Amino acid sequence: MAEDINAAPPFRRRVPEGDDRERLVCDSCGFIHYENPKIVVGSVARWGDRLLLCRRAIEPRRGYWTIPAGYMELAETSEEGARREAWEEARADLALDGLLAVYNIARISQVQLIYLARLTSDAVAAGPESAEVALVGWDDIPWDELAFPSVVWALRDYRRLLDRPGGLTGDFAPFGNPPGDRGDRRPAGL
Amino acid sequence: MAEDINAAPPFRRRVPEGDDRERLVCDSCGFIHYENPKIVVGSVARWGDRLLLCRRAIEPRRGYWTIPAGYMELAETSEEGARREAWEEARADLALDGLLAVYNIARISQVQLIYLARLTSDAVAAGPESAEVALVGWDDIPWDELAFPSVVWALRDYRRLLDRPGGLTGDFAPFGNPPGDRGDRRPAGL
Repeated sequence: MAEDINAAPPFRRRVPEGDDRERLVCDSCGFIHYENPKIVVGSVARWGDRLLLCRRAIEPRRGYWTIPAGYMELAETSEEGARREAWEEARADLALDGLLAVYNIARISQVQLIYLARLTSDAVAAGPESAEVALVGWDDIPWDELAFPSVVWALRDYRRLLDRPGGLTGDFAPFGNPPGDRGDRRPAGL
Repeated sequence: MAEDINAAPPFRRRVPEGDDRERLVCDSCGFIHYENPKIVVGSVARWGDRLLLCRRAIEPRRGYWTIPAGYMELAETSEEGARREAWEEARADLALDGLLAVYNIARISQVQLIYLARLTSDAVAAGPESAEVALVGWDDIPWDELAFPSVVWALRDYRRLLDRPGGLTGDFAPFGNPPGDRGDRRPAGL
């Protein structure tokens, strides 16, 4: 997006006084347009032992499967955002059970807050950004057709939690990126 | 900031096609400037049983005490950001021990990721945004001179963690806002 903003005058990249890095500064009024990472909020949402997946009807990765997730909006909390995304993408009503993971995708300056959630009903349906939605057992997850690496991470971390002695009950620390992976690499197809 | 961007033509607020809320759209080139919540990264950093506090040399809340924290920058991870802020504000080198809390301040569309951390040395010093820094025992925390409500939350949640049976060791779920508090209210003095 930086490129697009640069194309629209009168913003210019320079180091403002008292700062130590380049910002987009308006040549006309001096306004500093700070660019910061964006937050994605989402959930691994379960109905019994099945998990909610959505097949994307929009780019990027149209036709691939994802967990319900999207950009957090202004004036909402991260929990509200995760529930909103599940409604928008899968007409799903969620109860949140804790923060499953915090993933960093440094390459695109994105932080993902992924919640562990329960569906309050199995009456799900494709919202406008989904081609279809499904409640999928672990053995039926379409691993080769998942939209993003972090969808794989989230499903695997859910499974790790399920397989620990306490299962999904009790306190747990949120998972993070796979060790040594800052989310630097561009996945194939993106 | 939205007001400032609005003042700089040619952005205008309207609902883009296929969207369901108003965005800043450039009348000239059609570029959509999405506004999203910002991430603050910070830490409750300990040296033995003392905690690192910084007296702010800048507005807002100049002269008040805070934990080291600030806006996450592009292309860094949240952990890298928390360590960078501790360096910038207190010349402190941190080892991170987990995610202490995720706070939402919906009023200003802010998500705070606060890490539990250990100082690797007690050689701390005020950076450019701090008037002074201090390693403070629990009984010496200047509660009436803390800069923001979330600083109070973070210190109290650190104490809750310390006082649980396992103390600071082992896994723990990150704390969140005090129950029922979305971060809607503007604190006195801000």
